[in-house]
Amino acid sequence: MPLDAQQLAEACASTLYERDAASQAMGMQLLEVGPGRASVGMHVRADMLQGVGTCHGGHLFALADSAFAFACNTYNAVTVAIGCSIDYVAPAQLDDRLVARAVEQSRSGRTGNYDVRIENQRGELIALFHGKSYKVRGTLLDLENLQ
Amino acid sequence: MPLDAQQLAEACASTLYERDAASQAMGMQLLEVGPGRASVGMHVRADMLQGVGTCHGGHLFALADSAFAFACNTYNAVTVAIGCSIDYVAPAQLDDRLVARAVEQSRSGRTGNYDVRIENQRGELIALFHGKSYKVRGTLLDLENLQ
Amino acid sequence: MPLDAQQLAEACASTLYERDAASQAMGMQLLEVGPGRASVGMHVRADMLQGVGTCHGGHLFALADSAFAFACNTYNAVTVAIGCSIDYVAPAQLDDRLVARAVEQSRSGRTGNYDVRIENQRGELIALFHGKSYKVRGTLLDLENLQ
Amino acid sequence: MPLDAQQLAEACASTLYERDAASQAMGMQLLEVGPGRASVGMHVRADMLQGVGTCHGGHLFALADSAFAFACNTYNAVTVAIGCSIDYVAPAQLDDRLVARAVEQSRSGRTGNYDVRIENQRGELIALFHGKSYKVRGTLLDLENLQ
Repeated sequence: MPLDAQQLAEACASTLYERDAASQAMGMQLLEVGPGRASVGMHVRADMLQGVGTCHGGHLFALADSAFAFACNTYNAVTVAIGCSIDYVAPAQLDDRLVARAVEQSRSGRTGNYDVRIENQRGELIALFHGKSYKVRGTLLDLENLQ
Repeated sequence: MPLDAQQLAEACASTLYERDAASQAMGMQLLEVGPGRASVGMHVRADMLQGVGTCHGGHLFALADSAFAFACNTYNAVTVAIGCSIDYVAPAQLDDRLVARAVEQSRSGRTGNYDVRIENQRGELIALFHGKSYKVRGTLLDLENLQ
Repeated sequence: MPLDAQQLAEACASTLYERDAASQAMGMQLLEVGPGRASVGMHVRADMLQGVGTCHGGHLFALADSAFAFACNTYNAVTVAIGCSIDYVAPAQLDDRLVARAVEQSRSGRTGNYDVRIENQRGELIALFHGKSYKVRGTLLDLENLQ
Repeated sequence: MPLDAQQLAEACASTLYERDAASQAMGMQLLEVGPGRASVGMHVRADMLQGVGTCHGGHLFALADSAFAFACNTYNAVTVAIGCSIDYVAPAQLDDRLVARAVEQSRSGRTGNYDVRIENQRGELIALFHGKSYKVRGTLLDLENLQ
């Protein structure tokens, strides 16, 4: 029995997360996933603070980028980022619990566009991220063996 | 005797780096700094790899973002990022030695624009980054006590 | 009697539009405005086509940029763009009737972030635009004389 | 006798310019072209001014976008923009004579990255632009008939 779109999205995201040492090392958790969308959580640790005492932009970016990567890889076609931008709205502080929600805005041909919002535990907007994806060759899952 | 522009840039970058737990935890090294510019090195470790086995975009971004932060803070005025973008040109691999070079493109009023190039140990272009800075209140150094 | 937020938004947008020779020359029409949002229409004319026969990116950008400008100036504080990006999703053709809808994503201190979607007459997504605003000195309206 | 790289770049740009009603309608002039680069001039006319009396961002963007389009189409492979960003540094005024210089930063596979600087007649930086290109099918020139 073939996987439906939701099952496929979940299987892709789990597989990608298991292989993703970087997201794991940053303590990211995959909270929710569906076709073209993903939510990822991260706790701001002391080793993520930069020179002015707030979360390094690289870690905010990494969180959004992981959510984007999980979201654009929910169709079992290997898809990479070709360009991203981030706008910082408010600083994230030590011990903040951040959630990044990625939502597909467009997908056609080999490219797609995804928006990601990062919020803290009080629902305050921390950053806005936009990612452009590009489908390369290959699949994430070995579907023959899965079923 | 007051610091000249080069000395001021170096003092600002050293101070910022010492306080920057995130850049240190990622193993970044401050290679060179001057007014409006900075070069930062980073070694791609196993805990920086994402699901397809190359360096996570968040770590590439973090490297460029740190170079940008050091470059825009070389005038002893606390300056933060308000928005950044990155374009990925080629993947970075495990054990690559990356260098990010940030160069000021404009600075007027409270905002500035900086370009950063990330290259690997063979001089191959890995990513292009653009950062927009915003000068907030305060200084990085206690100049009275420095001299 | 002071203007309410909706009336203020409409008065700001009308004033800005009247002074905006560029938007008028491109045949843009202000369709709807409210606090932090604006919709602008434009008809793709023959003099807007570029070398491959579709609407020039500059005109798509201009349409989104005008919607963004009207949206971020709805509070009677003169606000300018400091940086924008556009992602092209599908080409716009001769005689297409485009609508750009700008919606505020954040506004704090002197800066704000706005998302704009451009769609054609069939509701197809043509482009995604993101604008960063910066509040300068001054007001758009002479409120004393308006009331 | 085949065209060399410089001749091919010039032939591509001329062909593209001739078909580009939009760039012509904005009074743009192709000043210089070579493999991966192009310079385009534009005079700021009264119909290019927006509500605060300076050149509309859409026209600045269009100028940079045209320079980018000419630059990325110098290899006789039809190449389109998939995303662009612009950072405004200083306003352009009525009657300013602007020049946009596009320079290739990377090109590999089907995508490329180009930087564009817009300066006025005094050499002052007006805006920074970054464009991402994507090679589609087809050629610009009918090389059989050219030679």
